Amino acid sequence: MALVVKKFGGSSVATPEKIIAVAQRVIRDKQPDDKVVVVVSAMGDTTDHLVELANSMTDVPTGREMDMLLSTGEQISIALLAMAFNKLGYPAVSLTGFQAGVSTNNAFNKAKITKIKPQRVLEALETGKIVVVAGFQGMTPGGDITTLGRGGSDTTAVALAGAMRADVCEIFTDVDGVYSSDPRVVKDAKRMKEITYNEMLEMARLGAVVMQPRSVEMGKHFGVPIHVRSTFSRELGTIIREEYTVEEKEFVIRGVTHDTNVAKVAVLGVPDSPGIAYKIFSALAKANIDVDMIVQSIRNVDKNIIDMVFTIAKPEIVEARAIVEEVGKELNVLGVMIEEDVAKVSVVGAGMFGSPGIAATMFGALSDAGINIEVISTSEISISCLIRAGQVDKAVNAIHACFFKEA
Amino acid sequence: MALVVKKFGGSSVATPEKIIAVAQRVIRDKQPDDKVVVVVSAMGDTTDHLVELANSMTDVPTGREMDMLLSTGEQISIALLAMAFNKLGYPAVSLTGFQAGVSTNNAFNKAKITKIKPQRVLEALETGKIVVVAGFQGMTPGGDITTLGRGGSDTTAVALAGAMRADVCEIFTDVDGVYSSDPRVVKDAKRMKEITYNEMLEMARLGAVVMQPRSVEMGKHFGVPIHVRSTFSRELGTIIREEYTVEEKEFVIRGVTHDTNVAKVAVLGVPDSPGIAYKIFSALAKANIDVDMIVQSIRNVDKNIIDMVFTIAKPEIVEARAIVEEVGKELNVLGVMIEEDVAKVSVVGAGMFGSPGIAATMFGALSDAGINIEVISTSEISISCLIRAGQVDKAVNAIHACFFKEA
Repeated sequence: MALVVKKFGGSSVATPEKIIAVAQRVIRDKQPDDKVVVVVSAMGDTTDHLVELANSMTDVPTGREMDMLLSTGEQISIALLAMAFNKLGYPAVSLTGFQAGVSTNNAFNKAKITKIKPQRVLEALETGKIVVVAGFQGMTPGGDITTLGRGGSDTTAVALAGAMRADVCEIFTDVDGVYSSDPRVVKDAKRMKEITYNEMLEMARLGAVVMQPRSVEMGKHFGVPIHVRSTFSRELGTIIREEYTVEEKEFVIRGVTHDTNVAKVAVLGVPDSPGIAYKIFSALAKANIDVDMIVQSIRNVDKNIIDMVFTIAKPEIVEARAIVEEVGKELNVLGVMIEEDVAKVSVVGAGMFGSPGIAATMFGALSDAGINIEVISTSEISISCLIRAGQVDKAVNAIHACFFKEA
Repeated sequence: MALVVKKFGGSSVATPEKIIAVAQRVIRDKQPDDKVVVVVSAMGDTTDHLVELANSMTDVPTGREMDMLLSTGEQISIALLAMAFNKLGYPAVSLTGFQAGVSTNNAFNKAKITKIKPQRVLEALETGKIVVVAGFQGMTPGGDITTLGRGGSDTTAVALAGAMRADVCEIFTDVDGVYSSDPRVVKDAKRMKEITYNEMLEMARLGAVVMQPRSVEMGKHFGVPIHVRSTFSRELGTIIREEYTVEEKEFVIRGVTHDTNVAKVAVLGVPDSPGIAYKIFSALAKANIDVDMIVQSIRNVDKNIIDMVFTIAKPEIVEARAIVEEVGKELNVLGVMIEEDVAKVSVVGAGMFGSPGIAATMFGALSDAGINIEVISTSEISISCLIRAGQVDKAVNAIHACFFKEA
């Protein structure tokens, strides 16, 4: 007997036929004594349609009303999926986020789960029912409906699994697991059997799009294994957990990721005196702009100036430019340059810390491929290089080939 | 300052443009200090679309899941209407049935309101907001979403108005009030300025379709005046209340109604002994079949038998026939005949009791028009005649002309 939470995204329940297929899939996998909770998102285009309706009312709907509107999307899916289970002879009951006990703060549109009291879920499981829960939504202590923002259904599933101490949380998706690199870029990318929470988090941070970081963090917090697998096949996918459990051919490097959604900001000729970095980065932090890959050049002894280089996400260029130029004027810098034609390639692996030569291997691979490295940054479990955007595919393949050659 | 509950049905909010028009209408009618609650139904075809989705899952969705599904319809309308108010500069907040404090029993699809605790509605009104409430829905004490069945949004509006001791509940609809007869049938039907709860209930029971009886009963229970008026004009409509307040030309008869959704059941040659009527009607009651216009013929002294005639609603013919034929066999009756080609015409008026000659006038009008009366029944405030279905329009016009001739 196992207690399992399964999550199916919007594309898995896009049509009535697909909803029935999900029900059949769940039933096929179910052992007689298994207790099964299924978390679903809104059907395919429903959310787009609702957003369109909202836009026909106003350009700036309040967050509260937007969440009142959007939360109907999952409510429709759960009712239909429960009907499908019932029709197939498996008693089921649907629960909204609120009914499933999902409490959130009141940050409408991107609320955070603050507490889960899954009493009704547990009671329904006790009576032998399959429980279908609306992902992506919850309720504030004041009784307002909220939505969790991007990747919210994954977060619901993992948090619910955690609160119920489920054996595993299965995330069904259109890829069949976590790969050593984006399979669309690297033809012979390897599917991992296991990967740690920390590695997954680092890969997500550095550009892998399989799982949103928040749900991985939630899994780590509760210690729930997250099984990322395909909606369309019964093969096992990748299990994200605290530590490896299986003896698989251990690669020190678990993934090669890339991220083209970055821009490089260079502040040139900054007077080299204490507190300068603080001035620039605190101004950016105040505007909620995340900064990454910070590098400071060696001081030019003659002029007593330095150059500062860092990266930001592309959508923040306009705001960041205004802020940095203003601070730059104050500091009397020589100039501010922002380049969009860059990309970040990274290697991630929890075992990297004790394995010298990883950086050298990576740099060598890039060098052999004729790719120039503009900025380097490292963390305990990753190394990243900023390169020209046009060279990303070549770079990722070259690095991947070095680390995964004989698997 | 007034506290007003306004209800707009599905056709009034069928498109984004119409939702904006409703918001504009409410704002135009609002005095600065008025406290306004707006109850809305689902947008036009939304419910049909949801039912279609359910049908693609199963022929027999459970009531609970159906209500989970259908209740999203109003949730979409309230969010959009609140956005429209906000956009027009009038702060508004939307509340689902549950959030507005509407408790029901757990008769899914046709739940009854058991209690209203409109605390959140009152709080929001106190802060100067327009409150938009989802009609047609509530929640059971166990936390399941329910819908109220046909005319449910009217019931929500009137019950909410009652619980809040509102000054009036305005029902906006595509007709501009309650008429002395169906204006599609009687060209010079008169719009009533006022009508009593009891008259309205009797007219609804006898075929008038303006208001569902449940919401009128609710109004009577709470003593809330119900103002039935047009969505498309600012003219006053008809106010349903306990007693008349205005001096209007008083017609003893307030309405002439008709109902073609009836069938006539004749049980012929029933042995005339005590308990026979009980046997027939208790069997029908057990199957929840409503019986009306019961007439028992004079006893045939030779054979000691009688005939029993009564009417039922057309959709219950099949079930009723089976029941009556079985009981008939037991009682050894001569035969059971069911006719569908009949209709009921009625006159309704609270003042009728003290006014002799109403029945005579009605029968005279039918006779002059060459219409045969098959069954007659009376109540304290109405007289009904069963006639051939094909003669309904002629009958209604003839009766109406007699009672409303000089108005």
